[in-house]
Amino acid sequence: MKKEYKGYLIDLDGTIYRGTEEIKEAAGFIEGLRSRNIPYLFVTNNASRTPAQVAQVLCDFGIETEADQVFTSAMATATFIAERQSEASVYVIGEEGLLNAIQEKGFTLADENPDFVAMGIDRKINYEKLVKACLAVRNGATFVATNSDAALVTERGLLPGNGSIASVISVSTGIQPIFIGKPESIIVEQALKVLGVDKKDTIMVGDNYDTDILAGINAGIDTLLVHTGVTTKELLKNYQEQPTHVIDTLADWKF
Amino acid sequence: MKKEYKGYLIDLDGTIYRGTEEIKEAAGFIEGLRSRNIPYLFVTNNASRTPAQVAQVLCDFGIETEADQVFTSAMATATFIAERQSEASVYVIGEEGLLNAIQEKGFTLADENPDFVAMGIDRKINYEKLVKACLAVRNGATFVATNSDAALVTERGLLPGNGSIASVISVSTGIQPIFIGKPESIIVEQALKVLGVDKKDTIMVGDNYDTDILAGINAGIDTLLVHTGVTTKELLKNYQEQPTHVIDTLADWKF
Repeated sequence: MKKEYKGYLIDLDGTIYRGTEEIKEAAGFIEGLRSRNIPYLFVTNNASRTPAQVAQVLCDFGIETEADQVFTSAMATATFIAERQSEASVYVIGEEGLLNAIQEKGFTLADENPDFVAMGIDRKINYEKLVKACLAVRNGATFVATNSDAALVTERGLLPGNGSIASVISVSTGIQPIFIGKPESIIVEQALKVLGVDKKDTIMVGDNYDTDILAGINAGIDTLLVHTGVTTKELLKNYQEQPTHVIDTLADWKF
Repeated sequence: MKKEYKGYLIDLDGTIYRGTEEIKEAAGFIEGLRSRNIPYLFVTNNASRTPAQVAQVLCDFGIETEADQVFTSAMATATFIAERQSEASVYVIGEEGLLNAIQEKGFTLADENPDFVAMGIDRKINYEKLVKACLAVRNGATFVATNSDAALVTERGLLPGNGSIASVISVSTGIQPIFIGKPESIIVEQALKVLGVDKKDTIMVGDNYDTDILAGINAGIDTLLVHTGVTTKELLKNYQEQPTHVIDTLADWKF
């Protein structure tokens, strides 16, 4: 008999919406959680937006969401640094989501000799930013990257993601970043703390085996793959360790 | 008895000068070649400058040089593309040296659906340029990079080189570039044609084992390592295949 999960960690793009397009089964799924008072948290690798901005996107799709129901890889990165060193100086490459998350922890922003380099997607990337990050990492700064996504799915096609831009620094310095987002367990462990539900009673929901499902597996929690995004049935056959549950759309889920 | 070489391929940075600093033994070495009428060609991975600009740098160091005595990885990249497809469209990321070399071959510059992506160091790199390169490579463009240098030696320290910036595209698309510059044999083979001297009578001179010496070895020509730059005596011990000749400074060379 299927377990009754008491907490849900839920991916966004490909699961709740697809770019600017709605996934129509998503609203009913979230309503199912709300009506049963089951705690849930949206967990996203997207480090460019603040949680309030992400919540607004969801509201625009008709899914009422508060900022505190959103957990981003930017927040997880800031928390990771805070756990290592509470009064750190940080050189940040990233957009509003990461900059805000770093500043909310009270870290000092530093261009030179920082304790950490925190790197997230930055569509205003330039050579000088890469120079500062390289010099800092060579100088001993701990190199942390919000996520290792090689590509971003957009209407224009697959654009460079944070994992590919971070490779400038890792190839140049020979030092690999600590990645925080899915498929790493780091973001999941943090999200579990925020959610406050036991690991054994929590499930990770997402469309992408290589990020969402692997993150759940790496953190040792049950997983639910939904075929509305990246990982099709065909692609799923290539993986040895299968998700705990697989459904075509979120409408197929029985709570 | 030492071979009398009839042609010299000579590295620049670390061999003839060091950044903005002169290497005082270099002028006498070049004068030695001139007075003996031995043909030589400066071969550099630096794709940012035109050959005329490089020649001017050498003149400023008191080493009289014409543009046609300079062979850059930018020129080698343009020649490589021309040999593959004479009327190609090319999307270029790079500075003046590469842009000029591409335009001198009469290629069409194209932002979309190019036949080739040619990438050299570009200190005005931005996200949109990386996007265009990624989309083009995913769309089937042949990805060519002037050189794989991970870092540039500068007064500020080791800054990101073309090899590290090119990794954005290779990590994002999963497609590796064809590298043209040293240590690849491609640039050496082309330089040999320009020099017009037999392979067996030509020697590659440089300070960096991983680029200059390896390029000579890969192209099957003799090599001369000079300890005025990157590869110290200590570092040289780590390499199994030793250069044909090793000297402390260019003043020690007997023609």
